[in-house]
Parts: sequence; C-alpha cells; structure tokens
Amino acid sequence: MTVNIYDDLNRLEATFRKTAEFAEVKEAVDVVAADEEALAMFKNFREIQMQMQEKQMQGEEIGGDELEHAQKVAQLAQGNEKIMNMLQAEMKLSGLLEEVNRVLMKPVQEFYEKL
Amino acid sequence: MTVNIYDDLNRLEATFRKTAEFAEVKEAVDVVAADEEALAMFKNFREIQMQMQEKQMQGEEIGGDELEHAQKVAQLAQGNEKIMNMLQAEMKLSGLLEEVNRVLMKPVQEFYEKL
Ligand SMILES: [Ca+2]
Ligand SMILES: [Ca+2]
Repeated sequence: MTVNIYDDLNRLEATFRKTAEFAEVKEAVDVVAADEEALAMFKNFREIQMQMQEKQMQGEEIGGDELEHAQKVAQLAQGNEKIMNMLQAEMKLSGLLEEVNRVLMKPVQEFYEKL
Repeated sequence: MTVNIYDDLNRLEATFRKTAEFAEVKEAVDVVAADEEALAMFKNFREIQMQMQEKQMQGEEIGGDELEHAQKVAQLAQGNEKIMNMLQAEMKLSGLLEEVNRVLMKPVQEFYEKL
C-alpha cells in the first residue's frame, strides 16, 4: 500500500492560508514593505543575521565588534513597532506550525517512549 | 472569519500514519525493542545525548573525557545494524515532515522574499 500525503497536505495548506495568524503575518509584512525606513532597517537586520548564521555554520569565529554591531542592528530593528509587530505575528504563526508538527509526531514519539 | 486547522490536520495525521515511512519507523523500533543488546545500547546513547543537550542548553561546559565517552557510545550505537536502521527510518520520516513544513511555509516565505 502506497499512501501519499499531498491531497491532505494541500487541503491543510489551503486552510492554513485562511487562518487569522496567516492573515496577520501578511498584513504586518505589507505594513513594513510600505514604510521605507522600517523596510531598510529590517533588510539590514536580516542580512546581518544571515551573515552570522553562515559564519556559525562554517565554524568561523565571530569577532567582538561584529557581534556588537549585530546586536545594535537587532535592537534598532526590534525598537521599530512595525518590525516588532511583524516578528510577533511570525512567532504566532510558527506556534501554529509547531502544533502541526506536534500532532504529526505524537504517534512516533509514543513508539520511542515505549523503548 | 475564524478558521481552525484541526479537521484538516487530523485528516493529514491519519494519512501520515499510513505512509510507508511511518510503518518503517514503527517496524524498526519494534526490532530494536525485541533485542536486549540493541535496546540497552540505544537507551545508553539516548540518555547521554539528552545529558549533553541539557548541558548545552544550560551553557555548561562539556569536558573532553565526557565528549570522548559520548562519541564512543554514539559510534557503538551506530555500529549496531538494528539501531542504524531505526535512525535511518526516522530520518526518512523527518524528510516527510520537512516537506509538510515546506509546503505550509512556502506562501509565508514568499511574503518575505518580496521585501
Ligand atoms: Ca516612512
Ligand atoms: Ca539479542
């Protein structure tokens, strides 16, 4: 028996896109996109975060000055209400995704708990 | 409009449990459970991994001897065919879960890509 999950997954995805959490992220992103200052701040924040992640993954050391700069940029971005609102909306949506993962992995976890 | 994802999620979960990937994990766990030696090895491996994770999360340092011991236990467990088979089955199932996450997050990622 070969089962494929795509019919059910696509149905879930369509419903996921109709949730309040999803709509809030979309709206919050649009608000940031419409504000040049917030947009520039967020792009800077995102770029530096990606640079740091890349370095970490490659095992490169992150200098003190660099870390300080990254923290400053993060603080600046998080001090912007529109960006903060967007990050919070994103976190709420992530919570929904975690719930999906929790429900799907529960039976697997139960196998392992029996060991 | 309030939408809840549980009907679709529960449907997906029922289908997820019918996949070949899920059945393979269940079977591989049963095989380990039925072998005292493999079971003891796996439990030891899991316990040490959890201890290490806990220390990392609490920012505690992990000593050289401790790390060496953990690596030895991991090597021993991974050298056991039944455990290795179980870990590989688990990885394949994780791939399915990653696909679920990828499909659900694709529209969100597209918002961010537009920024
Ligand atoms: Ca403006
Ligand atoms: Ca035996």
